[in-house]
Amino acid sequence: MTTSPVPGFHAVVPAGGAGTRLWPLSRRAHPKFLLDLTGSGRTLLQATWDRLVPLTGEGGVLVVTGEAHADAVREQLPALGEQGLVTEPSGRDSMAAIGLAAALLRERHGPDVVLGSFAADHVVRRPDDFHAAVREAVAAARAGYVVTVGVRADHPSTAFGYIEEGGPLDVAAAPTARHVARFVEKPDAETAAGYLATGRYRWNAGMFVVRAEVLLTHLERLQPALHAGLLAIARAWDTPDRAAVLAREWPRLTRIAIDHAVAEPVAADGGVAVVPAELGWDDVGDWRSLARLLPVGADGVAGLGAENRTLALGSEGAVVVPDGARLVALLGVPGAVVVDTPDALLVTTTEHAQRLKDVVDRLPDELR
Amino acid sequence: MTTSPVPGFHAVVPAGGAGTRLWPLSRRAHPKFLLDLTGSGRTLLQATWDRLVPLTGEGGVLVVTGEAHADAVREQLPALGEQGLVTEPSGRDSMAAIGLAAALLRERHGPDVVLGSFAADHVVRRPDDFHAAVREAVAAARAGYVVTVGVRADHPSTAFGYIEEGGPLDVAAAPTARHVARFVEKPDAETAAGYLATGRYRWNAGMFVVRAEVLLTHLERLQPALHAGLLAIARAWDTPDRAAVLAREWPRLTRIAIDHAVAEPVAADGGVAVVPAELGWDDVGDWRSLARLLPVGADGVAGLGAENRTLALGSEGAVVVPDGARLVALLGVPGAVVVDTPDALLVTTTEHAQRLKDVVDRLPDELR
Repeated sequence: MTTSPVPGFHAVVPAGGAGTRLWPLSRRAHPKFLLDLTGSGRTLLQATWDRLVPLTGEGGVLVVTGEAHADAVREQLPALGEQGLVTEPSGRDSMAAIGLAAALLRERHGPDVVLGSFAADHVVRRPDDFHAAVREAVAAARAGYVVTVGVRADHPSTAFGYIEEGGPLDVAAAPTARHVARFVEKPDAETAAGYLATGRYRWNAGMFVVRAEVLLTHLERLQPALHAGLLAIARAWDTPDRAAVLAREWPRLTRIAIDHAVAEPVAADGGVAVVPAELGWDDVGDWRSLARLLPVGADGVAGLGAENRTLALGSEGAVVVPDGARLVALLGVPGAVVVDTPDALLVTTTEHAQRLKDVVDRLPDELR
Repeated sequence: MTTSPVPGFHAVVPAGGAGTRLWPLSRRAHPKFLLDLTGSGRTLLQATWDRLVPLTGEGGVLVVTGEAHADAVREQLPALGEQGLVTEPSGRDSMAAIGLAAALLRERHGPDVVLGSFAADHVVRRPDDFHAAVREAVAAARAGYVVTVGVRADHPSTAFGYIEEGGPLDVAAAPTARHVARFVEKPDAETAAGYLATGRYRWNAGMFVVRAEVLLTHLERLQPALHAGLLAIARAWDTPDRAAVLAREWPRLTRIAIDHAVAEPVAADGGVAVVPAELGWDDVGDWRSLARLLPVGADGVAGLGAENRTLALGSEGAVVVPDGARLVALLGVPGAVVVDTPDALLVTTTEHAQRLKDVVDRLPDELR
C-alpha cells in the first residue's frame, strides 16, 4: 500500500453541525467535530486530517467551517494555514460549501484538480482501506464521474442512506468501482433488511470525489444561480474584494444539499460511480451509534474518558460519559445513556437517543 | 383536639441508620434522619421533634444516637439539651437503645413514667392523627400493655411488617385500641394482598408506647443479661462513673431488635395492644418510597429541591434530585431515579431501588 500523496488531489472538509444529537457533550458552540469522542487523544476533525494528509500532503486540505468555529479549527490544526481555511458567514448547506471549495481550487490549481469531500465528524477505523478506496475514486473521477464511497452494510441500519449499485465501471485504475443505480434516503427497518438481502446496497457515507471542472459543470446546468454566485465569490476570495463580494453574494446562495443538487440527478443520468469499501465507518450520529464505537468494560458498559469512574450493575449495553469529578453508579438500567458535564446531565437510553433533539429544542439557550 | 403535653409521658427517638438505601443523598456519616427529604425546610429528625414536643414538652424528648452523630443532632435540635441526648459508643440494635432510655427515664422520673419510641427518620403527614393515636396509646400503656400504632394499609406493601389485630381492648381512655394477635414480617405480594382482604392487618410503623416499669419487667424476664447491663449503665449515667461503666458494660450488651426481644413474645402472651390510625406514615425506606412523598410536576416527575432544574420527556413516575448546579435532562426513562450530588451520581429505577445496597457495598469507602 503506497502512502505517497495523489498528484492533483485536494481534500475538502465541511466542518459544521448543530451539536444536537450528542448533547450535552457537543454544543452549538462546540460541535461534534471538535471533540475526541473515541478516546483516541485526537478530535474527530484532527483524526480526519490525519487520515487525509497521506493522500493530499499538508497543503492539500481545505476546511470549510463557520466563522464561529474558525479559531477552534486553527487551534486544532496548526498546519492547516490560512490558505486551507474557508470561513462561511453563515451555513448555506453542503452544496454551497463544497461548490465554493471546488471553484476556489479550480481558481488556484486549474481545471484538472480533483477534490474529495469528507465530513469532519465521522469515524473511519480502517484508514488503509480508506486510502485505497479514495485512490480508486480519484481514478474514476479523472474519467469524468462523480464518485462516492459505498460502505459495506453489516446491519440493516435505519440511520443511514443507501446506495444501490449498478454494473461495473470499466476504468482500469478503479477495478472495483461500479455505476450507481440510485441513492435512497434512510429506510425503515423492513426496507433496510430487504436492501441487505439483495447484496446490491451499501451505506452512503457522504463522501464525494470529483474533478472540480466536472462538479462545476453539473452545477452550472442544475443550479445556475448558485453556480454563478459561487464563482463570483471564488474569483474574489484571494483578493481584497473578498469581504465585499461575500457580503453581496453569500446571503443569496441557494440552500441545498449536494446530494439533492448534484448526486441524485447525475446518478439518474448514469454519471455517478461508487467504490465499495469496508472502512469501519460510522457517522457517530447519536449516542447509540457512539456506544458501538467505545470500549466496553467487564460490566457490559461502554465508557468514554480515561477517568472513567463508573460502577454499573445490571446495565448491559449502557454508555456512560462521566465528567471525571464524580462517580457514576448505574443500577438496573440496560442500555442507559448517562452523560455528565459540568452544567448539564443527560439520562436516556440508546433506544430513545434519536429523540434527543426534542430535549435540546426545549433547553434554555445557554445550555444548547 | 388538645395540644397540651401528656403528664408523665416521654418520647424516645432512636436516631441511627446506615445511610444505604437513599444513597448518595444519605451517607454513613450523614444518614437519612439528618436530611430534609420532603422539601419542608425541616430535616426528618427536626420534623420528628416538631411532632413530639406538643405531647411531651421540650424537656420530654430523649434522642438516642451514635457518638458520630451527636454534634449534628445538637445542631439540628438546639432545644434538646444535654439531658435529652443519649450517645451510644456503638450501635447495639434497638432493644439496647430503647431499653437504656427506659431505664434512664425510670431513674430520673420514677416507675410510672410512660415512654413512647418513635424513629427519627419516618414521615407522618397527619400530626393531629398521630397525637390522638399516641394519647390513646398512653392510656393503654398505663393499663399495663405494650402498645403499638397500627397504620391503615392502603396498598399491599411488601416493604413493611404487618400487625394482625385481635379483639377490642376495653380500656376506657383508649376506645379504638385492640389486642395484637401477632406481628408478621415483610410478606410477599400475594400474602400482603391476602392480609388487606381480611381487613385485620395494619402496617407496623415501629412505634412502641409502654410504661418504663412494664418494659423493663418484660426485659428482665426475656433478656436478663441485657436487662442487667442496661440497668448498671442507667444507674451510672448521671454520675461521674458513666464512662467507666459504659466501657465495661456496653460491648457486652446483646444485639437484638425490640420487636424480637419483647414485642413478639409479649404479643404471644396477649400483652400487646394496637391503636389504629391513619397517619400518612412512611418509613422513606428507599427511593421508590420517597418518590411517592415528593411533589410531582406536570411532566409526571417527582422532584426534590427548590432549585429543581429538570427537563423530562416520556419519563413518568421518575424521581429526580438535582444538585442545583446543573440541569438534568431525562428522556424516555419512566420510573427513573436520578440523584445528583457533588461527588456521586446515581441512575437507577424505582423498580431496582431496593437493590441499592448492592451498589453501596461496592463503593470506595469515602463515597459511602
